[in-house]
Amino acid sequence: MSKKKVNVGLIGYQFMGKAHSNAYRQVGHFFDLPVDVVMHTICGRNEQAVTKAAQQFGWQNVETDWRKVIENPEIDVIDVSTPGNTHAEIAIAAAKAGKAVFCEKPIGNTLEEAEAMLKAVQEAGVPHAVFHNYRKAPAVALAKRMIAEGKLGTIYHFRATYLQDWIADPNFPLVWRLQKEVAGSGTHGDINAHIIDLGRHLVGELDEVCGLLHTFIKQRPLAGAINDKLGAEATDQMGEVTVDDAAMFLAKFKNGALGTFEASRFAVGRKNYNRFEINGSKGSVVFNLERMNELEYYNNDDPEGEHGFRLIQATDASHPYAGQFWPVAHIIGYGETFINLLADAFTNMANGTRIEPDFVDGYENQRVLDAVERSSETRSWVSL
Amino acid sequence: MSKKKVNVGLIGYQFMGKAHSNAYRQVGHFFDLPVDVVMHTICGRNEQAVTKAAQQFGWQNVETDWRKVIENPEIDVIDVSTPGNTHAEIAIAAAKAGKAVFCEKPIGNTLEEAEAMLKAVQEAGVPHAVFHNYRKAPAVALAKRMIAEGKLGTIYHFRATYLQDWIADPNFPLVWRLQKEVAGSGTHGDINAHIIDLGRHLVGELDEVCGLLHTFIKQRPLAGAINDKLGAEATDQMGEVTVDDAAMFLAKFKNGALGTFEASRFAVGRKNYNRFEINGSKGSVVFNLERMNELEYYNNDDPEGEHGFRLIQATDASHPYAGQFWPVAHIIGYGETFINLLADAFTNMANGTRIEPDFVDGYENQRVLDAVERSSETRSWVSL
Amino acid sequence: MSKKKVNVGLIGYQFMGKAHSNAYRQVGHFFDLPVDVVMHTICGRNEQAVTKAAQQFGWQNVETDWRKVIENPEIDVIDVSTPGNTHAEIAIAAAKAGKAVFCEKPIGNTLEEAEAMLKAVQEAGVPHAVFHNYRKAPAVALAKRMIAEGKLGTIYHFRATYLQDWIADPNFPLVWRLQKEVAGSGTHGDINAHIIDLGRHLVGELDEVCGLLHTFIKQRPLAGAINDKLGAEATDQMGEVTVDDAAMFLAKFKNGALGTFEASRFAVGRKNYNRFEINGSKGSVVFNLERMNELEYYNNDDPEGEHGFRLIQATDASHPYAGQFWPVAHIIGYGETFINLLADAFTNMANGTRIEPDFVDGYENQRVLDAVERSSETRSWVSL
Amino acid sequence: MSKKKVNVGLIGYQFMGKAHSNAYRQVGHFFDLPVDVVMHTICGRNEQAVTKAAQQFGWQNVETDWRKVIENPEIDVIDVSTPGNTHAEIAIAAAKAGKAVFCEKPIGNTLEEAEAMLKAVQEAGVPHAVFHNYRKAPAVALAKRMIAEGKLGTIYHFRATYLQDWIADPNFPLVWRLQKEVAGSGTHGDINAHIIDLGRHLVGELDEVCGLLHTFIKQRPLAGAINDKLGAEATDQMGEVTVDDAAMFLAKFKNGALGTFEASRFAVGRKNYNRFEINGSKGSVVFNLERMNELEYYNNDDPEGEHGFRLIQATDASHPYAGQFWPVAHIIGYGETFINLLADAFTNMANGTRIEPDFVDGYENQRVLDAVERSSETRSWVSL
Repeated sequence: MSKKKVNVGLIGYQFMGKAHSNAYRQVGHFFDLPVDVVMHTICGRNEQAVTKAAQQFGWQNVETDWRKVIENPEIDVIDVSTPGNTHAEIAIAAAKAGKAVFCEKPIGNTLEEAEAMLKAVQEAGVPHAVFHNYRKAPAVALAKRMIAEGKLGTIYHFRATYLQDWIADPNFPLVWRLQKEVAGSGTHGDINAHIIDLGRHLVGELDEVCGLLHTFIKQRPLAGAINDKLGAEATDQMGEVTVDDAAMFLAKFKNGALGTFEASRFAVGRKNYNRFEINGSKGSVVFNLERMNELEYYNNDDPEGEHGFRLIQATDASHPYAGQFWPVAHIIGYGETFINLLADAFTNMANGTRIEPDFVDGYENQRVLDAVERSSETRSWVSL
Repeated sequence: MSKKKVNVGLIGYQFMGKAHSNAYRQVGHFFDLPVDVVMHTICGRNEQAVTKAAQQFGWQNVETDWRKVIENPEIDVIDVSTPGNTHAEIAIAAAKAGKAVFCEKPIGNTLEEAEAMLKAVQEAGVPHAVFHNYRKAPAVALAKRMIAEGKLGTIYHFRATYLQDWIADPNFPLVWRLQKEVAGSGTHGDINAHIIDLGRHLVGELDEVCGLLHTFIKQRPLAGAINDKLGAEATDQMGEVTVDDAAMFLAKFKNGALGTFEASRFAVGRKNYNRFEINGSKGSVVFNLERMNELEYYNNDDPEGEHGFRLIQATDASHPYAGQFWPVAHIIGYGETFINLLADAFTNMANGTRIEPDFVDGYENQRVLDAVERSSETRSWVSL
Repeated sequence: MSKKKVNVGLIGYQFMGKAHSNAYRQVGHFFDLPVDVVMHTICGRNEQAVTKAAQQFGWQNVETDWRKVIENPEIDVIDVSTPGNTHAEIAIAAAKAGKAVFCEKPIGNTLEEAEAMLKAVQEAGVPHAVFHNYRKAPAVALAKRMIAEGKLGTIYHFRATYLQDWIADPNFPLVWRLQKEVAGSGTHGDINAHIIDLGRHLVGELDEVCGLLHTFIKQRPLAGAINDKLGAEATDQMGEVTVDDAAMFLAKFKNGALGTFEASRFAVGRKNYNRFEINGSKGSVVFNLERMNELEYYNNDDPEGEHGFRLIQATDASHPYAGQFWPVAHIIGYGETFINLLADAFTNMANGTRIEPDFVDGYENQRVLDAVERSSETRSWVSL
Repeated sequence: MSKKKVNVGLIGYQFMGKAHSNAYRQVGHFFDLPVDVVMHTICGRNEQAVTKAAQQFGWQNVETDWRKVIENPEIDVIDVSTPGNTHAEIAIAAAKAGKAVFCEKPIGNTLEEAEAMLKAVQEAGVPHAVFHNYRKAPAVALAKRMIAEGKLGTIYHFRATYLQDWIADPNFPLVWRLQKEVAGSGTHGDINAHIIDLGRHLVGELDEVCGLLHTFIKQRPLAGAINDKLGAEATDQMGEVTVDDAAMFLAKFKNGALGTFEASRFAVGRKNYNRFEINGSKGSVVFNLERMNELEYYNNDDPEGEHGFRLIQATDASHPYAGQFWPVAHIIGYGETFINLLADAFTNMANGTRIEPDFVDGYENQRVLDAVERSSETRSWVSL
């Protein structure tokens, strides 16, 4: 009668730790899952901070050494939400310990890391997932369903931008996200990775790419004390920015569609402008994360004189995920995208079916990231 | 082979004079009319100013006495574009002289004037038109067509606002439009009249109304020298505002629909926000003059999961009037609404069919304006 | 060191029960509250259903008799989320038992009930709150702050609509919300109540009103088995609709502003269109619940040529409540409005300060609802 | 007292002929020009059709041989509005005959043609203009002014798309615009040329580009009888499409800004979606031709908590060109962009100052078009 428990250990407790914790806490209250999700242990190096996080986020236990979490036989799932340079080591160890591994994106800082991680989970035969959460917004899932049903016909264009502006100020300090050895890359791995995932998810695999990574501000003040936003105080000393500020590329998909991708942290006024438009022979869709409950849809088969982009409020019981939450047009938020992702992941795990997106997706994403970087270096097209 | 000429005499040369002149000049170039429209004579009291207007607008002759225009046997149409307090006298004289009469709205300053004007044109058997030009925006005409075709089903709601802000500043001077003896009323007759016409045109006749006319700023500086915007310089002396700043009312239509109407010159930030929404049992439409090439349309019969307001760009050859101008989505502007109105008017005149809107519409409009004013005074519902 | 516990008993477990439960569960994870909120007991008459709700929503205990919840000495707060005809009895009993009372809106089905309820909580000296949750959307709270700071200057207009369409189909059955003896009123008490609260909150008390309540469909099929949406299956027998389908009124506020309010369940295509616009001498704001993370703002003091309505994404740390959740432009949803309301309520309770909105607000709201009903009956203006 | 006459000869009478004619007819009625513009002669090979066009558009004389128009000593300005493969010959001949030359874009079908044309007008010392009319939309001119005033600071990004869908149907026939020998190129020269011009105009010269031209549908039915839309009837025989269906490229501007450009005729649902966004260190602007009276503007210096994109209605007397037409928020349309261009052109001609845009702009535009084509062929970056 009572469900099987699944104990989760979360490594990391910053922004993603907060978002993931919320999802573990909520998922069983909105979805009728086959298992009971237990927030077993949260792990971070700073004991005081992680203890506070455990209280705030609702975790039962605290740990400061991630290896102990992995070794704990009670724990079933390891969630890797640390900075990118530690993903591979933790995820591979977790896989070897026989744990399911749920990892933040991009899964590694390099293609080699991603490949090793994928190999590790496949060899261990453990479930694996990657947090490309935007797939799970109801409006995006609706777009996916419509494309799968053929409602857009042959896809001609995928056009995506992910625009932010939080480092447009040259005096913004050199936080870890601007250092290649920690973050792997800048805008490219952080937010281009998201629209690459959406492109792969909705249109298919890429065939070749040609891109440009660019750094507008090459020196910044070194970071001092951490503050409560995304960063830290600026100090008097300067250091070198080693990641890209903007990343853009042209692409051909294997199915013949064309793609444009552009990510920037220098688009002043744009905060979280993850927008894509897909044009097919039968219709088009447009999504914008800042209005994530809406999907614009153009149906080329509408009667003459009545054509137009429709503003679908993807909050209806007929839309993916939406019926689990509130009545139509009572919107959900960013946090719910993680809830939906976990609902799928725990269901797939219990059923023994593939989780989507998983490390295969994480690896393929990294192949694209890597190809674009090489293209930017060689100033030419790169095949995938 | 050559077409019959129709000679027009325009009385008035301010804002409406400019808009009407543009339409007379352009109508034959965009529509294949049964007649040749000739811009024969423009008339104004200030000879120098009207001479300049004639040159600027393209009129062949100038006159300073409107009676002479009416007496001129060459002239076929008298266009009355003067302030409201002179409409009745000019229009009635023109009708008696056997001229077609095209009059700005509202046709009179009082219901009595409107009734006398209607009687005059009917007794004279002359063609008559009133410049409710917004009916002739392609998007509005499309809404009308869709309603006529039953696409909205039974109409439940008409909800209209016409919002401006040009007198929200208490120091804006007491121009003629704020004086009852010249303008007849304020916001009510000026812009409420427009949305009343749209309501009548699109939904049908009103049955009863309950409204409120209100003046926020009861004293203003007297107007000095006329300036080039809507008004004049402020002087040191104060005078009493004798018209309404805002006018709003509830309504029942004879067909059972409910209506709300609100007009204001105190809606800071709104410049020309003439917006209506119509909700019927099968669908809804929304129009906003500031985006006058668009019509939002909701079709309740769309498939489940695909409902949404569509943004129809009413610029397609399949839409009313639009095919006369540019290719789809190459928009037209305010000026073209008058062109469309004149195209209809000259065509109806030539065919001997009723022009729409005409003095019957002008009179019915005034009946509503009058009923709302009485309702505001008696603080109760008034039947029409 | 550990915080004081506050034990909550929730009466009711339908839509509002779900929304309130989510908020009790989440509030301590996003806000640093002075107390620990404990989800002690949920109560409903159907034991099986309420037991399932307890599991789904996270309540510790189940009860089928609301009197037992009130008598339970462990419980500190009674949350009244039942249909309107039972509010007064439960809330008054709870107050007499010395419990804090948090009640859904409108607090009673009649003005007499509301008055008795207010009297009860005041005489008992217990904390009281009413769930006008839309006040707590960050964008609305931002509008409130801007008005309080004088950024809109003198308020001239409040213009609100709350539009839905879920009973536009004449075959939709006669559910309890369409029966006066249970629901008190229809659209008026259900959703007009919300925009009345926003008007009072943002602009001030109303002075007089003139309105119309209307029922488009006077007979509907009787309701059969309850289904999972808002209602029930239609049967073959017909019954009389005893509440309004639409409710609209004009208003004068005590501070001289004018108001228009319109609520309907027959606005086909509108799902949860709770929209208001406020025009003041220095600027304007616009809010739409369907895009609840946004506030449009027009600043009349912007430089010439640069005026325009700004789309403020009210998701920044500088905006009310928003900093508790996600980074800027990572939006929140409907559920969070209740979290914010409870965060305020528990903080005020702990501090011994007034909760806003409380039963005074609930009572004043009901006075307006009542005045509009009387106005609709007498077909004239009614003073408050 | 009377102004000098400028006699115009227009070569071509299709879509552009209509748009240019309207502008010649109207320009003197909205602008106080230093000259009188006379619509002297219209020229086309089909005598019947051009005679009809002359009547419809308001030209005084008709000619079937363009050389006779150029030889006519009365004519001062030659307007070249024919298909691209005839521009060079006509324009060069006109320049040699000492006429001012106003030419449609792109000025030639190849870079060589453009260069020869520029050389011809420069050697002849005649005034020259190219119809990049979108520069002259008030909203675009406002963006230009704001950038010139430094309001956007250092420009980081220019992001432009020009999307249409009129050939997305594979059965659309092989009209002249799809044949390289007549049209020069497809989407690239037709609409990419427009956003290249806007990029150059607003941000500055390009430094290097990397692009892709692509043809989705490589065979189409041969075109039969010309119809009244953009094309012709489809026949049973197939022919090869020799131009691009879509053209996209990445760019670096000489001032360090990054650019993305994408043009397509396969973006189903997009009719005339010429949209750009410019992000600078101090702010951003967004323009969309389908709402060409609006400019979105984000000011990074707005007070904390009040940031947001403003919807400027660029229809105010303070905005470029707008004051010549109607009061604020009474919008203008596509046709008026040509009027504004001619107003500038005739004024510059009379003053002896440079017309903008002129053949230098046309030539620089073609250099970019050419570089992108070469980049597409060589699959690498090309410097300008």
